[in-house]
Amino acid sequence: MTTYRKFPQVDHADATGELKEIYDDIQATLRVPWVAFACRVLATFPGYLPLAWRAAQPNFATRYAERAVDALRERSLLPGPNPPDLRPKLRELGWDDTRIDAVRRAVDAFNYGNPKYLLLLTAWYEAFHNRPSGGADLSQEDAAPIPRGLPEGVAPLELVDPDTASPEVQALLKRAVDIHFHHGAASDFRVLANWPEYLRLAIDEVLEPVVRTEEYDAVTRALLVQARDSIRGFPAPAGVSQDEISNLCSPSEIAGLSGLLFMYQRFIADVTVDLILLKQALDGPESAAASPFPIP
Amino acid sequence: MTTYRKFPQVDHADATGELKEIYDDIQATLRVPWVAFACRVLATFPGYLPLAWRAAQPNFATRYAERAVDALRERSLLPGPNPPDLRPKLRELGWDDTRIDAVRRAVDAFNYGNPKYLLLLTAWYEAFHNRPSGGADLSQEDAAPIPRGLPEGVAPLELVDPDTASPEVQALLKRAVDIHFHHGAASDFRVLANWPEYLRLAIDEVLEPVVRTEEYDAVTRALLVQARDSIRGFPAPAGVSQDEISNLCSPSEIAGLSGLLFMYQRFIADVTVDLILLKQALDGPESAAASPFPIP
Repeated sequence: MTTYRKFPQVDHADATGELKEIYDDIQATLRVPWVAFACRVLATFPGYLPLAWRAAQPNFATRYAERAVDALRERSLLPGPNPPDLRPKLRELGWDDTRIDAVRRAVDAFNYGNPKYLLLLTAWYEAFHNRPSGGADLSQEDAAPIPRGLPEGVAPLELVDPDTASPEVQALLKRAVDIHFHHGAASDFRVLANWPEYLRLAIDEVLEPVVRTEEYDAVTRALLVQARDSIRGFPAPAGVSQDEISNLCSPSEIAGLSGLLFMYQRFIADVTVDLILLKQALDGPESAAASPFPIP
Repeated sequence: MTTYRKFPQVDHADATGELKEIYDDIQATLRVPWVAFACRVLATFPGYLPLAWRAAQPNFATRYAERAVDALRERSLLPGPNPPDLRPKLRELGWDDTRIDAVRRAVDAFNYGNPKYLLLLTAWYEAFHNRPSGGADLSQEDAAPIPRGLPEGVAPLELVDPDTASPEVQALLKRAVDIHFHHGAASDFRVLANWPEYLRLAIDEVLEPVVRTEEYDAVTRALLVQARDSIRGFPAPAGVSQDEISNLCSPSEIAGLSGLLFMYQRFIADVTVDLILLKQALDGPESAAASPFPIP
């Protein structure tokens, strides 16, 4: 079996200077405890991430963005039967509530942040190709800022490094990737890999039965359509065009960025649906599609 | 309005040495009169295209591949009403049968080749991520070779260069791109742009009403699912993994290639459906999903 290796990226711990500032600002603005896989990969290209984030930042600091993201999250529930409740199975494995709560905190953080990153990548992809990604008039209410920084009780997340993980964890991460036909492990799965027993149950019982079914693909498509609609309501363009970075990037870098922006839109839509499912399997469907950290 | 510009790529006319040989061999093996946009963009990355094509070539020279492609083509018809017949509208614009035949020849060439390239990119994407893209036992019949070179009567295609096209043609190409939320103009549209009156009608009357509808996206998804199934039946792995090119490409090049392979699978599925629709609008639904150049 081929060893499962980490996809090219700049980890938060390895970011320095301007890139570290950008990573920190992404987390503080979006109020999330991790920098998306997409951003960490885009950071390997010269100049793009800082420019694209500076365009996005004022848009994502608004109530408009928060509401658009809440609406995406509500749309992320799969039709059909609920996934099985994983709690009794975890208790059979000797898990107590404290340990289940630790997983729940990670799942909540991702459920809060995934649809934000979906909106972000959609804006970046559209802007890259000279299509509108903002420029609408906002009501005073929509233009109001959201609080900055992590919601109360949210702590930084620990991503397992596939390159140094145990063969068991590597195999779990590879399964998470392959059932989706993905290119690499989402941050979500790298964090959940801190609890291999849980990740195995999550894949076996919750994800594998539905991932890439017609219903699943129809929901991820609907998220993409809704994200495209939402970005046009931003107050200002939320990304940069390929023309704006043509002096920073080579032709193959421009092409590669284009492919990555396209891919990560769809990748994040998938993972958004996955983590809502995992929340359902921990806490039932009522709470799954609601914001875990609503802004009053 | 932003000028519509060509996406980074190496045109066939600009290819020299090994790359020109690869381009020529792609055309001769697949029996098509153009090298796909995907291949022309991948050619901007060091080393990838020759290695990937050499892995693909023996697989695509088989009857198995031809049959898998015919099955994809049959799956590409949209449900619902037929598109309007464009011939009376073209005759109103003064078109005679000779001119309509010239468009038909281009449409046929793309309808023959698009699903081949969909299969190719699917194999390349899966192989890139260490998933199976071949290794099955073929029956003697499936293993038999197909003829090499262009089918009788098929001539090389002329792609309009967006960088030097008239503003009218640039605007048409940008519309073809934007209605799909694509990143650049498919070869198909660059060839059809030789007949701007036709391309305008094709976009207005045939494509825009259906592109990116639920039904359209369901068909393109089904093509992708079927392509993934088909590649596992190839006699040998039909692509190379990211590990195999890690000494040729930088980390951001590996990432960019991954994004492009993902994107072009979906891009080609879209264009496959589009050109079947355009064939329907010229010749009715019966002939649209049949191979224009069946191998006896």
